[in-house]
Amino acid sequence: MRRANKEIKNQDVLIGLLNTSHVGRLGTITGDGYPMVKPLNFVYHGGRIYFHTAKEGEKIDDIRRDNRVCFEVDLPLALVKSKGSPCRAEYLYRSVIVKGRALIVEDLLERTEVLKRLMEKYQPEGGYKDFPEEKLRITGVVRIDIEEATGKEDLGKEEIRETVLKAMADQVHLPIVIERV
Amino acid sequence: MRRANKEIKNQDVLIGLLNTSHVGRLGTITGDGYPMVKPLNFVYHGGRIYFHTAKEGEKIDDIRRDNRVCFEVDLPLALVKSKGSPCRAEYLYRSVIVKGRALIVEDLLERTEVLKRLMEKYQPEGGYKDFPEEKLRITGVVRIDIEEATGKEDLGKEEIRETVLKAMADQVHLPIVIERV
Repeated sequence: MRRANKEIKNQDVLIGLLNTSHVGRLGTITGDGYPMVKPLNFVYHGGRIYFHTAKEGEKIDDIRRDNRVCFEVDLPLALVKSKGSPCRAEYLYRSVIVKGRALIVEDLLERTEVLKRLMEKYQPEGGYKDFPEEKLRITGVVRIDIEEATGKEDLGKEEIRETVLKAMADQVHLPIVIERV
Repeated sequence: MRRANKEIKNQDVLIGLLNTSHVGRLGTITGDGYPMVKPLNFVYHGGRIYFHTAKEGEKIDDIRRDNRVCFEVDLPLALVKSKGSPCRAEYLYRSVIVKGRALIVEDLLERTEVLKRLMEKYQPEGGYKDFPEEKLRITGVVRIDIEEATGKEDLGKEEIRETVLKAMADQVHLPIVIERV
């Protein structure tokens, strides 16, 4: 990272972002050597990132060929507009970028546990039935073992910081608009 | 793409998503061969994707080493919960994945034009001043020449399609919640 002052040093903030984000993006390398970025739902559990997927497909092919992956989440916080120089307009955000190794989980117990954790994340109030056994057999689960996780944030200049933090506390997850004079 | 039925065939929908998304993610390959994914603001203009960046940094280094890139945008539409099998829970979305070549724009006129287009996208009501000339000189602009753009969408099963489309028409850009019985 070029600007060290933007680094998120608080691990709770970083893990909080992984726990509350609905969508992350997986970076892999395709057979013809291009980078590939795909959005997916996921769960952060036991210090690892897990997602479910079809047992065959481009993601699985990429991982089998080269298990080095990137995983990214970002949370847009505020679009700051400017009435002065356009260079004063900015976009505030938090993000986490993970570098790691992807592994196709074969163990049925680990796969079942991950699918349960995914449901707990996206439907925390419960109310659904048990997983049908035949579905557990055919659903692929991928685990990312994290080698490095870097958080980055821009919460804006001091004069707007309070507005930004308040909006975050109110859990406004779409960018708010701030008029900078 | 494994499931052809999810492909967005309407080019207007695909371009609409590129025009309305605030954040896209750039996929590159790092010096040590890992894929890298970074969020950024961008503008789609003249059939190309443009973003601005510092003139030195990891993104520029990656592109100079290997100009093959991926660019991704996604729009979460709805989190569909299930009261039956957990396998009926789903996450609806639209996404576009671009494969292309990145090029560092040296021409001052093209750079100036891109910065203006960026401001028009993020602050369409205007009200800001002209770009200071010294800023135009020091701001890096990258162009992605698109080789392939693939749109994908899941708007849900027929029984919830109407609710999803209505929420989209209302421009709700955070996932709505649908209770599936």
